[in-house]
Amino acid sequence: MGPGPITADPRVLRAMSAALVGQYDPAMTAYMAETQELYRGVFRTANAATLLVDGTSRAGIEAALVSLIEPGDRVLVPIFGRFGFLLQEIAARCGADVHTIEREWGTVFPPEEVIAALDAVQPKLLALVHGDTSTTVAQPLAEIGAACQERGVLFYTDVTASLGGNEFETDAWGVDAATAGLQKCLAGPSGSSPITLSDRAVAVIAARKSIEAGIRDADSQVVAHPIRSNYFDLGQILDYWGEKRLNHHTEATSMLYAARECARLLVEETMSVAVERHALHGGAMAAGLAGLGLELFGDQDHRMNNVIGVFIPAGVEGEAVRGALLADYAIEIGTSFGPLHGRIWRIGVMGYNARRDTVLTTLAALEQVLRRAGAAVPAGGGVDGALAYYGSAE
Amino acid sequence: MGPGPITADPRVLRAMSAALVGQYDPAMTAYMAETQELYRGVFRTANAATLLVDGTSRAGIEAALVSLIEPGDRVLVPIFGRFGFLLQEIAARCGADVHTIEREWGTVFPPEEVIAALDAVQPKLLALVHGDTSTTVAQPLAEIGAACQERGVLFYTDVTASLGGNEFETDAWGVDAATAGLQKCLAGPSGSSPITLSDRAVAVIAARKSIEAGIRDADSQVVAHPIRSNYFDLGQILDYWGEKRLNHHTEATSMLYAARECARLLVEETMSVAVERHALHGGAMAAGLAGLGLELFGDQDHRMNNVIGVFIPAGVEGEAVRGALLADYAIEIGTSFGPLHGRIWRIGVMGYNARRDTVLTTLAALEQVLRRAGAAVPAGGGVDGALAYYGSAE
Repeated sequence: MGPGPITADPRVLRAMSAALVGQYDPAMTAYMAETQELYRGVFRTANAATLLVDGTSRAGIEAALVSLIEPGDRVLVPIFGRFGFLLQEIAARCGADVHTIEREWGTVFPPEEVIAALDAVQPKLLALVHGDTSTTVAQPLAEIGAACQERGVLFYTDVTASLGGNEFETDAWGVDAATAGLQKCLAGPSGSSPITLSDRAVAVIAARKSIEAGIRDADSQVVAHPIRSNYFDLGQILDYWGEKRLNHHTEATSMLYAARECARLLVEETMSVAVERHALHGGAMAAGLAGLGLELFGDQDHRMNNVIGVFIPAGVEGEAVRGALLADYAIEIGTSFGPLHGRIWRIGVMGYNARRDTVLTTLAALEQVLRRAGAAVPAGGGVDGALAYYGSAE
Repeated sequence: MGPGPITADPRVLRAMSAALVGQYDPAMTAYMAETQELYRGVFRTANAATLLVDGTSRAGIEAALVSLIEPGDRVLVPIFGRFGFLLQEIAARCGADVHTIEREWGTVFPPEEVIAALDAVQPKLLALVHGDTSTTVAQPLAEIGAACQERGVLFYTDVTASLGGNEFETDAWGVDAATAGLQKCLAGPSGSSPITLSDRAVAVIAARKSIEAGIRDADSQVVAHPIRSNYFDLGQILDYWGEKRLNHHTEATSMLYAARECARLLVEETMSVAVERHALHGGAMAAGLAGLGLELFGDQDHRMNNVIGVFIPAGVEGEAVRGALLADYAIEIGTSFGPLHGRIWRIGVMGYNARRDTVLTTLAALEQVLRRAGAAVPAGGGVDGALAYYGSAE
């Protein structure tokens, strides 16, 4: 019950045991096409360029940024948590001229603040986290995406923590590139990064396909720089996933099986029902924590459905509580980073763990551990709070 | 029976179905330490910095090169097949000043030719493939490693295709960095890259840990450049695998389970017995192909144990034979690249497929398919050749 990685769905774990096939076996081509179509459903997009990057969610982030950013490009990164700082750092390593704006952790940007920064900075690319697990809140994206489209700014968003458990619309929101991972609401293991790219993003990448020392115009000015990475060169990776089926690296077949099964689970459930499920059980967890007398962290109007921040009560040793939950109840909850370190726990309710039994068991166990740690907790308050929430939601 | 990826060992496939644990669960720390120790056995090294990169074998190559090469560094890449060209390309994308020497495909360099180039080019790093699956031959490395050590040149080698099926000695041969994959003689799926780094390589990486705009000396000259990649920053990844246990990306836990099981299989068998097994069954396959009247490709004195190149007989359509083997016998053999395209097939005998039954079945099937394709093949010649080899090897 941490903020991810989480307990994987048994169907996903079993999928990885399937026999391997060669990466040019006709069966493999069909598996890839099926996976792409499933992820179009998950990302809510018609993008042809919807595929997997072979690495963890961070590999998907870096593939998108290194493929879209040329050295010297101006990039705007609004930061409201740890993963905003990660986008800043990766963009800087790509050679970008990075501009940032920041918000206090636990809050999100009013969209007009980001739009004003777009006008002030005039970046080529906006890189913005959707849901930042470090702070538990999700940035509203629809207005910002529309503003990017009006201004011709490329819009990249990291949806690793949010996808599948919170509303997300690639096409309707004007997103040019989105990357994810399996280890949150997708109920799988870390190690494969689903990614989708708009035609506009694909055109930017296609212009950089030369690996020569630079593409020059008639006046010998460099107009495009080669992509700095081979492994993350989305131009070459698209040629592998696309009709050309050109060889790049050897596909991570077992992780493709896992990613495909994750998407099947969501598409079978439908995206809207999956989001409702996360909202229901995440809401019940929040109500239960309040019922234990604990104070919730962050802007609750913008809280992600799938992760709840809660202040560690005064006088309680946070790490001792986490240790007891793991040792005595086999339940893991999350610590926190940066300015929140030692101040809050983060409890995940996502993917295979977004269930009534996991919510109630966690609350029952937490009550016992808190009591033994010397906190004054109302007997049954957590479970009562959650059950009341379930009752009112029905 | 292609040149990889190959049929994975069922033990490895089952290992991926194990439940996930959080990446800071004490159990996970123990799994990581166990995996590191197992790979020290596989790589034949005492290097503390022995770990997994979360991506395919190509991810390991890029992690090593982008972490060791600073922009402007002189790098020597001897090329004797497709993967030498890949090392050249990746080094160039890292900003290296790349120098190459080339040999005809199917041959290897006399070590003194590489050593002479070391003296002529005086590189910071030598990047050299061990076994190049595209040509089926393996470059002798021991003398070259000793020469690098004498000259203070960093020595990187890609052992993806060779490790586990051919003799390889990280420490005894003076190798500073070696990277591999699971999908060849390690009998697993693509998606995790075992890697080992000498103390000398770790020191080069440690000097680059600043992500600032460069580390400057007293005269404000830049003396070290930050690593261009976050995902492949081996300095940060070593802090995750090392005693500090700092957070980096979310570990690809299921692939770690796979990599661990691959190493267990080899360490249980012992490395020398595994190499002998590949030599035995690879030799039987080569003898069987000769028994079918086919001509072997490449310098047989330097052929890898685990992959055999064989010329497509005149008048036979190579792709039709591959198609019939797959459709009618469920056996995949490999095509070839570059100057060898359309001229040879490549047949793998590696990992879980390095067995007597797979060798004999493949030879029996190939005989039938070749005969139906119009080739004059001696009845039973393939199986007779292999059985004679097995008999003489006992």
